[in-house]
Amino acid sequence: MTSADETRTGVWLVGARGSVATTAVSGCAALAAGLLPPTGMVTETPPFADCGLPALASLVFGGHDTATTPLPKRAEELAAQGVLPPWLPTTVQGELAAADEHIRPGGPVPGDSRATEELIADFATDLRTFARTTGVARTVVVNVASTEPDPAHGAWPASSLYAAAALRAGCPYVNFTPSTGLSHPQLAGAARASGLPYAGRDGKTGQTLLRSVLGPMFAQRALAVRAWSGTNLLGGGDGAALADPAAAAAKNAGKERVLTDTLGTRVEGEVHIDDVPALGDWKTAWDHVAFDGFLGTRMVLQTIWQGCDSALAAPLVLDLARLLARAHERGLSGPLGELGFYFKDPDAEGSALAEQYTRLLTLPGRLGGTR
Amino acid sequence: MTSADETRTGVWLVGARGSVATTAVSGCAALAAGLLPPTGMVTETPPFADCGLPALASLVFGGHDTATTPLPKRAEELAAQGVLPPWLPTTVQGELAAADEHIRPGGPVPGDSRATEELIADFATDLRTFARTTGVARTVVVNVASTEPDPAHGAWPASSLYAAAALRAGCPYVNFTPSTGLSHPQLAGAARASGLPYAGRDGKTGQTLLRSVLGPMFAQRALAVRAWSGTNLLGGGDGAALADPAAAAAKNAGKERVLTDTLGTRVEGEVHIDDVPALGDWKTAWDHVAFDGFLGTRMVLQTIWQGCDSALAAPLVLDLARLLARAHERGLSGPLGELGFYFKDPDAEGSALAEQYTRLLTLPGRLGGTR
Amino acid sequence: MTSADETRTGVWLVGARGSVATTAVSGCAALAAGLLPPTGMVTETPPFADCGLPALASLVFGGHDTATTPLPKRAEELAAQGVLPPWLPTTVQGELAAADEHIRPGGPVPGDSRATEELIADFATDLRTFARTTGVARTVVVNVASTEPDPAHGAWPASSLYAAAALRAGCPYVNFTPSTGLSHPQLAGAARASGLPYAGRDGKTGQTLLRSVLGPMFAQRALAVRAWSGTNLLGGGDGAALADPAAAAAKNAGKERVLTDTLGTRVEGEVHIDDVPALGDWKTAWDHVAFDGFLGTRMVLQTIWQGCDSALAAPLVLDLARLLARAHERGLSGPLGELGFYFKDPDAEGSALAEQYTRLLTLPGRLGGTR
Amino acid sequence: MTSADETRTGVWLVGARGSVATTAVSGCAALAAGLLPPTGMVTETPPFADCGLPALASLVFGGHDTATTPLPKRAEELAAQGVLPPWLPTTVQGELAAADEHIRPGGPVPGDSRATEELIADFATDLRTFARTTGVARTVVVNVASTEPDPAHGAWPASSLYAAAALRAGCPYVNFTPSTGLSHPQLAGAARASGLPYAGRDGKTGQTLLRSVLGPMFAQRALAVRAWSGTNLLGGGDGAALADPAAAAAKNAGKERVLTDTLGTRVEGEVHIDDVPALGDWKTAWDHVAFDGFLGTRMVLQTIWQGCDSALAAPLVLDLARLLARAHERGLSGPLGELGFYFKDPDAEGSALAEQYTRLLTLPGRLGGTR
Repeated sequence: MTSADETRTGVWLVGARGSVATTAVSGCAALAAGLLPPTGMVTETPPFADCGLPALASLVFGGHDTATTPLPKRAEELAAQGVLPPWLPTTVQGELAAADEHIRPGGPVPGDSRATEELIADFATDLRTFARTTGVARTVVVNVASTEPDPAHGAWPASSLYAAAALRAGCPYVNFTPSTGLSHPQLAGAARASGLPYAGRDGKTGQTLLRSVLGPMFAQRALAVRAWSGTNLLGGGDGAALADPAAAAAKNAGKERVLTDTLGTRVEGEVHIDDVPALGDWKTAWDHVAFDGFLGTRMVLQTIWQGCDSALAAPLVLDLARLLARAHERGLSGPLGELGFYFKDPDAEGSALAEQYTRLLTLPGRLGGTR
Repeated sequence: MTSADETRTGVWLVGARGSVATTAVSGCAALAAGLLPPTGMVTETPPFADCGLPALASLVFGGHDTATTPLPKRAEELAAQGVLPPWLPTTVQGELAAADEHIRPGGPVPGDSRATEELIADFATDLRTFARTTGVARTVVVNVASTEPDPAHGAWPASSLYAAAALRAGCPYVNFTPSTGLSHPQLAGAARASGLPYAGRDGKTGQTLLRSVLGPMFAQRALAVRAWSGTNLLGGGDGAALADPAAAAAKNAGKERVLTDTLGTRVEGEVHIDDVPALGDWKTAWDHVAFDGFLGTRMVLQTIWQGCDSALAAPLVLDLARLLARAHERGLSGPLGELGFYFKDPDAEGSALAEQYTRLLTLPGRLGGTR
Repeated sequence: MTSADETRTGVWLVGARGSVATTAVSGCAALAAGLLPPTGMVTETPPFADCGLPALASLVFGGHDTATTPLPKRAEELAAQGVLPPWLPTTVQGELAAADEHIRPGGPVPGDSRATEELIADFATDLRTFARTTGVARTVVVNVASTEPDPAHGAWPASSLYAAAALRAGCPYVNFTPSTGLSHPQLAGAARASGLPYAGRDGKTGQTLLRSVLGPMFAQRALAVRAWSGTNLLGGGDGAALADPAAAAAKNAGKERVLTDTLGTRVEGEVHIDDVPALGDWKTAWDHVAFDGFLGTRMVLQTIWQGCDSALAAPLVLDLARLLARAHERGLSGPLGELGFYFKDPDAEGSALAEQYTRLLTLPGRLGGTR
Repeated sequence: MTSADETRTGVWLVGARGSVATTAVSGCAALAAGLLPPTGMVTETPPFADCGLPALASLVFGGHDTATTPLPKRAEELAAQGVLPPWLPTTVQGELAAADEHIRPGGPVPGDSRATEELIADFATDLRTFARTTGVARTVVVNVASTEPDPAHGAWPASSLYAAAALRAGCPYVNFTPSTGLSHPQLAGAARASGLPYAGRDGKTGQTLLRSVLGPMFAQRALAVRAWSGTNLLGGGDGAALADPAAAAAKNAGKERVLTDTLGTRVEGEVHIDDVPALGDWKTAWDHVAFDGFLGTRMVLQTIWQGCDSALAAPLVLDLARLLARAHERGLSGPLGELGFYFKDPDAEGSALAEQYTRLLTLPGRLGGTR
């Protein structure tokens, strides 16, 4: 057992063997070693230079996952798909293996006989054991598991069990998915009472990111959007999860919210999410915006976004873990409205990216000076 | 001769029989009569409700053009192309004919023997005659003529002759094109000394408008743009003018400036402008952005913008005429940095649309209360 | 009563007040008058010059429709949407009004108490009355009504009632929609016994037309298509009808058949049909084809088709009416396999457009010399 | 020295260390070893099963290149870009090294003092030495070097020197590029007299392949194409070569020819080729087709093709080498019109892919039975 080490920070990933988690752990090691530039990490830009964020090299990873393929193997799979550079898995194999040793099975697994309370207790124990074993000063829990269907009324989805365990173990919490997590009605009181900082939900990485800058453009120019339609093609685990209409519903709600917020009115148009296994971890989003200009002239904007989901999400996950860790260190609590920049369904009002960025830039001041 | 009428404002369009001018005059009449909603007009949105802008119904149009097809005929041509609603030319025929009577031939026309000074004097006389005849309180000059090639060193391009005439006649001036206009080195002193407000240059209506919101998105997310390539297809007069590489150069400089400004670095990539007469007044802009995400993963965003150039430009021309008129009434002078929102090559620093919009919203306060 | 006139041919449109029918009637009049070139009409190209097709000027239109807006009014609506040239409705008002007089209400209308047999008999009477009144030599029935949901087992959908009436009245029949029409199991015997020529089904006008040339390209180049995904946005009546998943199912089956046929294997990928009223009669189809090249290299083709549904369908409807009329005159009977070129779900095998076109070019020979 | 071995065939690549050549050699080894399926190779489809083509395992590679990076190293570079599977370079290192030993420097190199005749003689000697050393029954020469600018009148471009050497050494010849090669006026007589088979020119791998199926579609449907515009973005050597307007001119001529041929008329529209080094060996081609439908209704088709140039070209190069070898064995001579399927600027008339494919399928019969 190590004594608490103010220089190390735990990052506990729910869904620790998924593509996003594997990319985050691999990438953190590569960046800490100076092997690659920190593209995509907002916390590595100048405005965040002096606000006391934990160094990438000080992050210690662990997590829950019901999958059993070890992280080094998962990294090789991602490299074969072009998600990670081919040389990276071998280079950071040590760091991946170290993180893999801190992954616990989570649950509930099929046939699991544990009741809700027991599961929460077990997960909280996992978090405390991780902290004790690694000697980290604090642990940020980040949900990067596959999107869950909307739970039946009153039921406890797995994401909320993990969120409850985070509260119980005194851990700041981030929900990077559209799953319920900390938003479960029975967790509202505990969250408020916990004195912990938290943030969410549903990371904004592609189509919705675009919408959060294009929506304001139409509004500011007084152009009348008549219909905004979209189709997402994605393979990988997320594609399969979101082919379930119930899971997709949660995700789509976030996408629509951004439009309604930024355009100031609900607009016509559907969003489709197709599971296309042939695309692997890559996703394509096509958007078609029919709008009226002066005198009702009909015009169209179309966008096609082709990105790698894990590579879009992973740097934001690292950003959020660092920001929450520092917020916790400084005693901030409750929802961090400044982090709306990262989410489809943010804790703060307003969905225009530019305003969210302006607000994000106020956070370094609140986080204080260098450590 | 009418005595000066504080309730009427002159709008003098250089290129008064072009598509943009015809659409602006037709549209202003339609909106003043309540026949169509003011889509695309920023000055009709709530933030501009109480700052004393002249009413659309109070605008009186005139202008210079070497072309001779009368405005009512031009409006019919545009309606046949779908730029104006089919019923509009007949409905606003009276207003179009009235404006057409205030159009003077301008110049220099082929074989014109007038020297620079004489041309300026003639144009200024045209402006004064217009004001006297119509009794408007003031006249805003707006350049919406076809883009000129970059002038030979020391030469006076037509756009600068008109700008000089505006100064001489005491008229606020807007350059909606990439042509030289008031930016001619020999006009700098006169502009400063005039005490007039002015704004420019090169209206931001399509591809560059998009770039001014997408560029900041990449920068704020720390994504590394590797190449930004674009092709514009446009028919109409602008397509033909910009097929001239010298004219296109001026326009492209503005497009690149927005990227360099918002991304903080020059990026690879060319911009093509093709004259495609089959498209008439419609334009299509395709942009291809190759960018790196986390760990150097290569991703792509493509946008396709299909719009009607005149319908995009005309409401902004009306906006600018109203804003400049009120600025003049309130005694504002010099370049109005708050109007960067409208231009590719603005008078103020910064090319991110959101910041430009925030700055624009400070203008109503400066323009003061209701008339 | 007129005696049968060998120089005139009836065209009976089921859905006679719909957009396709209105465009076909308007366009036929414009072309007969030499006002516009016959763009989009295959039967006006050289290979069909000397095979005895009825002249466009000789076509007499009538039809069934439960809608009551008269054709001249419908034409004005389409002109306002840009589907027809603005001047056309006035110019061909006489022809539209004449056709409108031959439109009968059809059915079954809500609350209709007529049994299946009675409806068929009534429709057949309408056809015979039309022929007698107008004195046409023969009448081709063409179904251009909105797509029906797949009928319950054993039930008689409206489209099959009309098809049965065509058989009974001795009329050649074309099904331009995915509805059941003549494909109803209980009509198979009657169709065979009728000695009439017929063709169908489901006109190929946009996304599927493209697929019928792109699918063969991939196959001929031995490129391995991994997933073919598509989204269709359409307003108008068809958009609303196809937003019904049951109706869309029929249409999508045709689209998939073309891929399976031309690629030689079923491929992954969904097709969405969205009702976007803002698009009016225009439709946009986006296709995303993920394919493997040499050594498994992943590549992508995307296509965006923006067309006007009625303008794409109407000339094919005129083509088919003329071809069926001549086939009937020459005594051809049964399904005309040569017309697979026009359909998503053709009577003949093979879905590659080039082969279908080659086969179409054999038809003039069978139709014989000039009249 | 080996005696002529009827079971082995030489493939001599001009540009032997370029991306296409490296991919062809690597891929041939992988396919011969059964490590990957023959995606993209037309000669591995059933119609070519029994016409006596040399087996992939029997091909022996050599060539000319002024570059010096050895093939195994080039393969690693391509694997790092995702052009080759990451494991391939190591697996086929032996075959790459073997081919590399047969690469000669070619020329003219900078400062080369050899006259035209001397260069041709030297290259022919290289070919004869290769045949003698390896004992192949015959050697097919394939030009896959970077596109040359159009030569000055009367000058000998390098591609024609290599073509002359092929004739002199009795080798069948394929020009996969738009360079002059065998089309040099001073080679016409020698080519005719040689009794050798040959084919060219300019492989059809992306935008033009698409045009060769889309052009016929518009023509067969009697749709009036108004403008066909395109932009190509490509990195790699070809991007740099084609950024030279003179080189691009040759390539664009081929692209336009396909449109003019298939549409039956010249259409408006430019083609741009941009060098975008960030794209590496990948290319993106955007096409915008403005066309008129019935009654002049304006419609648009856009296509976006994202492919890997080497992976598109390499299997066709292997196809052509095998087909030419067998044609030579069977005594065929002169231009092989059946191979128009592969080229932008084919030896035979007609540019529609479907017709070219039909004609290609007649070749196996001419090539005769199994060896």
